[in-house]
Amino acid sequence: MLPFKTLIKIDRKSKLPVYQQIANGFIGLIREGVLKPGLPLPGSRVLADQLQLHRNTVVAAYAELTSQDWVVAVARKGVMVAANLPLIKPRSFKTTTSSYAQGPGFHFNTIPFPAMTSLQPLKAGQLVINDGFPDVRLAPLDAWGKECRSIIENPRQHKQLMYGEAQGSEKLRHEMIKYLTNTRGLDITIDNIMITRGAQMAIYTAAAMLIQKGDYIIVGSPNYIFANLCFEQLGARLLHVPVDGDGIDVAAIEQLCRTRKIRMLYVVPHHHHPTTVTLSSERRMKLLAVIRKYQLAVIEDDYDYDFHYSSAPILPLASADHGGNVIYIGSLTKSLGLSLRIGFMIAPVSFIAEAGRRRRLMDLRGDNLSEEGLAAMLANGIIERHLKKSKKIYRERRDLLCHLLEVKLGDLVQFTPPSGGMALWLQFTGNASLPAIAAKAATQGLLMSSGSNYHYIAKPQHAMRFGFASLNEKELTAVVTILTKIMKR
Amino acid sequence: MLPFKTLIKIDRKSKLPVYQQIANGFIGLIREGVLKPGLPLPGSRVLADQLQLHRNTVVAAYAELTSQDWVVAVARKGVMVAANLPLIKPRSFKTTTSSYAQGPGFHFNTIPFPAMTSLQPLKAGQLVINDGFPDVRLAPLDAWGKECRSIIENPRQHKQLMYGEAQGSEKLRHEMIKYLTNTRGLDITIDNIMITRGAQMAIYTAAAMLIQKGDYIIVGSPNYIFANLCFEQLGARLLHVPVDGDGIDVAAIEQLCRTRKIRMLYVVPHHHHPTTVTLSSERRMKLLAVIRKYQLAVIEDDYDYDFHYSSAPILPLASADHGGNVIYIGSLTKSLGLSLRIGFMIAPVSFIAEAGRRRRLMDLRGDNLSEEGLAAMLANGIIERHLKKSKKIYRERRDLLCHLLEVKLGDLVQFTPPSGGMALWLQFTGNASLPAIAAKAATQGLLMSSGSNYHYIAKPQHAMRFGFASLNEKELTAVVTILTKIMKR
Repeated sequence: MLPFKTLIKIDRKSKLPVYQQIANGFIGLIREGVLKPGLPLPGSRVLADQLQLHRNTVVAAYAELTSQDWVVAVARKGVMVAANLPLIKPRSFKTTTSSYAQGPGFHFNTIPFPAMTSLQPLKAGQLVINDGFPDVRLAPLDAWGKECRSIIENPRQHKQLMYGEAQGSEKLRHEMIKYLTNTRGLDITIDNIMITRGAQMAIYTAAAMLIQKGDYIIVGSPNYIFANLCFEQLGARLLHVPVDGDGIDVAAIEQLCRTRKIRMLYVVPHHHHPTTVTLSSERRMKLLAVIRKYQLAVIEDDYDYDFHYSSAPILPLASADHGGNVIYIGSLTKSLGLSLRIGFMIAPVSFIAEAGRRRRLMDLRGDNLSEEGLAAMLANGIIERHLKKSKKIYRERRDLLCHLLEVKLGDLVQFTPPSGGMALWLQFTGNASLPAIAAKAATQGLLMSSGSNYHYIAKPQHAMRFGFASLNEKELTAVVTILTKIMKR
Repeated sequence: MLPFKTLIKIDRKSKLPVYQQIANGFIGLIREGVLKPGLPLPGSRVLADQLQLHRNTVVAAYAELTSQDWVVAVARKGVMVAANLPLIKPRSFKTTTSSYAQGPGFHFNTIPFPAMTSLQPLKAGQLVINDGFPDVRLAPLDAWGKECRSIIENPRQHKQLMYGEAQGSEKLRHEMIKYLTNTRGLDITIDNIMITRGAQMAIYTAAAMLIQKGDYIIVGSPNYIFANLCFEQLGARLLHVPVDGDGIDVAAIEQLCRTRKIRMLYVVPHHHHPTTVTLSSERRMKLLAVIRKYQLAVIEDDYDYDFHYSSAPILPLASADHGGNVIYIGSLTKSLGLSLRIGFMIAPVSFIAEAGRRRRLMDLRGDNLSEEGLAAMLANGIIERHLKKSKKIYRERRDLLCHLLEVKLGDLVQFTPPSGGMALWLQFTGNASLPAIAAKAATQGLLMSSGSNYHYIAKPQHAMRFGFASLNEKELTAVVTILTKIMKR
């Protein structure tokens, strides 16, 4: 009998059960050619003695080997190595490392991706200036949990949790239509809407349906970096049009439409990302005329519409006469404290039907339970109440931040108070180097952008988005105090 | 003064607030050219009288118009139409329908998509033979709700809900590694795993990283239809290799590798979709040799590994020496009753890093709350206990279904009891037409596939997947009784 005690290594600290370790040991020996086809294995009692294990462990190992066809059990003869194994050339006895440590032998497609500031708050108490996040502490997640529980406990809703369409929960789509009609004056039916995993999936899906390699598309300069990267990944050639205090330059858009075939325009009319400016109503009307005239496909990204502080926001392009050419995108993720990502895409019926087919292949559909829970929160007014309450708080935080910046940093910075959204576009005047400020801030427990996330492709901005919504009074004060210390010394 | 009472229509049944209806009415009149730039609007009191509304409603409408720059308020003169509006040519006064009803003026990319049986259980009590779904009634969703609640209620976890990486919750990735090591003997680190929206997103992402337009890839015949459609959408040319009782034909794969550049192989080694056969260990070893020899990129879709009824399943290709070429895909969605979609992709570090960048553009990241909740369920053994319990129940259902089919339908059907998974591959012998059976079943309250979902591209199968896991004893008996009535009359 072979010295199985030395041939088969058992590591009692391993996470792998012992019987599997034994089975793996035998598989190794068969593959090495040490155990030839037809060779009988020791009886389970004998092997258990040799390895000092309970016999049942060996029996389990043999059962495993049998089920994997490495050995066969022959009546009255015991277990032997299976005869019909492929020939394998012997390998050396070195302990192999994981196949995954080697890296693949094949090539794969890569996409251009700039180095970006990663804002991972690692330690408790660390302060972060983010891009414009909501405050998860205000999010009605407890209400969401209650809605989910009542869905789970209701046997009549069980089937809804198993079946579903790529366009999303029917109930949620109905509630979203009501909500969008009330807040944006949209005139749509259930076939005009697809629920997505946040606005980003809506951008990706719509762009993938529009762009073919080499197509020209128009974006603002600067622009939301993850939109630009998405379009580039899909093969588009980006044409950059200036964004000034009135929003994107519509005359420049029309000029481009006149001179070449434009596949698509991406526009953020409210609280433009990153600069937070809003498209003026004059430009909005001009843009609608351009859209109709050139049958221009438009992705209107209205990610922050629900958070507007001075009167009502201007209605989206999607609510006006755009000839069916505007794909309207938004999100409810900010009302859910970013912890659940649910967005939507509004488009003509034929576009939504095709988007559903495409989405089916990407990730099948959304999470039925989360979608039903959100639908209930829209139906019973929880979302509306949350928006009302949080808008008031965010407006106060915006005002406090503007005040603090004015008083403490004075002419070292420049900004226009944003009319809505969760961030302020802070420009650094003078000789201030944003990366240097960010590096110093990190040593004081404040994580902030080095500005790299805003000037990819476009020119460097010496500016950053200062998210104020997720910081309370005390935190905002602490953040500006740290900045002041760094910039005024 | 203009007859605003007739010019501005107010619909009290509309979901749009009255003040917005008034504002929209004015915008229409300005755009039609009825109200010229510089024209003063009636005072709010006067208009309120004429429209028989409360004055505050008109004030709100005017505020809306002001905020949208359609009108300007001039001290002591009241409100007048803004002077700097773009010129608009008058339109007719017809009531316009929604812009979305028109359909887009632009073209968009479409993908081939066959007609498929849709299994939407519409009425309570309706029976469904699905593709192999778990029973949501057994899923530990109450436990998941509890875990989420305790995360929501813990202030120290709040930041985890706002920030996160595209590869998924760090805690969940750690728990998944433990789970995959214990159940599959995988040897991986946290940088080898990305959490996805179910297995489908893992398939899509991996395929998008491998395929370039025109590439040859190998799939089984028949194959999981949503994998085929996904690969085609990405521009691949599919080479179909037979699947028989021992799984995919490895000799045929090697033959193809010898004759041309193969970009990728998609394989379902356990409970192949749709036929439920398992790759024999002999073929598995041959396939590993082919993978290493040709540095062949492989997507190993192991969607059903956790549900194996006769001893342990054969270890995945990913656990053996594959030279880093196997991308291993699976899902926990079936343990969550399909109500939440969480899957994973295992691959070399460089591949996962790139997958994260790509996923960032597709949908940013997963739902932090759901992922943290699942991590807790893995950590405290709830998933393991659920698997143990449900496997026992599903095995009993499989055995009952086999018995019922044998006894009631005899030689009208043919099948091999599956060693695992949630479905049985039922072949209809004789002259039975599956679409005709499905049509008759629908009239008896039983929804079932017409078989169209299995023979896209490959040849028609006269067969269907009979999902048994989601039907209890009573339901299975009722379903087979209906089938018997239809087929034996």
